[in-house]
Amino acid sequence: MFGGVEAGGTKFVCVIGTGPDAIMETRRIDVAGPAESIEAALDFFRRAVAAGTPLAAIGIGSFGPVELRRSNPRYGFITTTPKPGWSGTDVAGPFAKALGIPVGFDTDVNAAALAEGRWGAARGLASFVYLTLGTGIGGGAVVDGRLLRGLGHPETGHIAVPRRPGDTYEGICPFHGDCFEGLASGPAVGARFGRRAEDLEGADQAAAAELVGFYLAAGVRSITYTLAPERVVVGGGLSGMPGVIDAARAQLRAQLNGYPGLTEHAEPSFLVPAQLGGRAGPAGTLILAEQAARLGADAANSTG
Amino acid sequence: MFGGVEAGGTKFVCVIGTGPDAIMETRRIDVAGPAESIEAALDFFRRAVAAGTPLAAIGIGSFGPVELRRSNPRYGFITTTPKPGWSGTDVAGPFAKALGIPVGFDTDVNAAALAEGRWGAARGLASFVYLTLGTGIGGGAVVDGRLLRGLGHPETGHIAVPRRPGDTYEGICPFHGDCFEGLASGPAVGARFGRRAEDLEGADQAAAAELVGFYLAAGVRSITYTLAPERVVVGGGLSGMPGVIDAARAQLRAQLNGYPGLTEHAEPSFLVPAQLGGRAGPAGTLILAEQAARLGADAANSTG
Repeated sequence: MFGGVEAGGTKFVCVIGTGPDAIMETRRIDVAGPAESIEAALDFFRRAVAAGTPLAAIGIGSFGPVELRRSNPRYGFITTTPKPGWSGTDVAGPFAKALGIPVGFDTDVNAAALAEGRWGAARGLASFVYLTLGTGIGGGAVVDGRLLRGLGHPETGHIAVPRRPGDTYEGICPFHGDCFEGLASGPAVGARFGRRAEDLEGADQAAAAELVGFYLAAGVRSITYTLAPERVVVGGGLSGMPGVIDAARAQLRAQLNGYPGLTEHAEPSFLVPAQLGGRAGPAGTLILAEQAARLGADAANSTG
Repeated sequence: MFGGVEAGGTKFVCVIGTGPDAIMETRRIDVAGPAESIEAALDFFRRAVAAGTPLAAIGIGSFGPVELRRSNPRYGFITTTPKPGWSGTDVAGPFAKALGIPVGFDTDVNAAALAEGRWGAARGLASFVYLTLGTGIGGGAVVDGRLLRGLGHPETGHIAVPRRPGDTYEGICPFHGDCFEGLASGPAVGARFGRRAEDLEGADQAAAAELVGFYLAAGVRSITYTLAPERVVVGGGLSGMPGVIDAARAQLRAQLNGYPGLTEHAEPSFLVPAQLGGRAGPAGTLILAEQAARLGADAANSTG
């Protein structure tokens, strides 16, 4: 049995189980300060262990930016988030210390990518991208069967996108103004239309879907030219807005404009909605836990 | 001893050796039609073998787009290039047939990336990007020590870049107009200034360097947010224009604007000129050959 924490900016979702259809226990925690939020999550797992649930490892998928290099002294930390009070928070450390079991740590979107890869819309693929369109825009990528990591982790929401003709909205990203996230995240759509994206109706809703579809395609174009994925899976609240995926597919064909001539890019199966919805992140943390348990066993074997 | 072919759009460079400082023989072939060009390369290797040079394998780094999926019947082909007469050319096949040794096949920029990783500006790094700025703009990437491949291969020159303020040049990419390559490749610079990029002098040269630096930074920004590389290595003719790399470093700091707060992004070591120059591609094909030899040996062992 594995434990997992989807550590989002507004809520933590703690789970115990082995997959999206095998979650034994769940606790949702409204996020306050780092210490209280982490303690509330620890309390959930401590009680479960005390009640006899054997936890082999725990996985954490965190909002970011986070430090993923194990050689770095701040491995497992949230680094420089704009979220007040959270910069420099050690997230992985307290779990390892309090529970004494292996801890897997990655971004929330990388966790969701893993889950969509095993149980969802990217099953069987070696290389794919998972994007989430919601309060922010984020992305995780699997390359050759493994999560993409490097100096840091993908920050796909901050790539540049070409302007939709006629669009003069300045964008809301505090760092870049009119990046992908700045122009097409939920709050950007809300600010453009004067009401929350999920409350839009009629002509406004249709216009919003065309707008988001345009920018989703623009982001997917540059991601596709950089990563050459077999598929792009799109989750998050905005991905469920009627018309967004269809608009994005049509726009993607127009924006790729036949280059480099891969027929796969024009097929509906190239750009698809996520299948696990809000369960992707929590389920993915269970895969992070499983990987940590395996790594822990390997380390024990190699020293034993 | 390995053989290698850097199959460019205007010339093939054939080499025999083991590395950039251990090339025993070289032949440059001006590219004509596919059949003549490939036959001229085969002739070079056949003569070497007849003269007693033992070739364990051959590597080919080709202009593209190419098909890299071994499961695809067109593996080893150039697919849909705008270059007249070359679409649908089987490049790897004739070498395997004529020489009877393992053939490694990848893009020219992936080959150059491998060489910069082993002998050049990216030594010791697990994850980096190689960009070439010349007649076209192309990119190869190494992730976790391995060449990035997926549905196809990176086509980094075709990502979207934000307009430099005041730049109204329409761009020369036949597919996208004002993509990275359309705005900042050698021919784009030449068209903007009315003479070849390498012939620019004085104020024009300085202006061109600022222009190319801006767009190089813009491309690197989105690539960095997508791939999270430890370093970006830049080769190709335009990368050697005085002032380009310095302008790009300053612009990259401005365009990333402190996000996600990695101090490494602001260091000169993050964005560096290639070290192997024109030798990177040919030397990299020798690594492709070496990998093919190893794969061949593995296959022989697994069936033996």
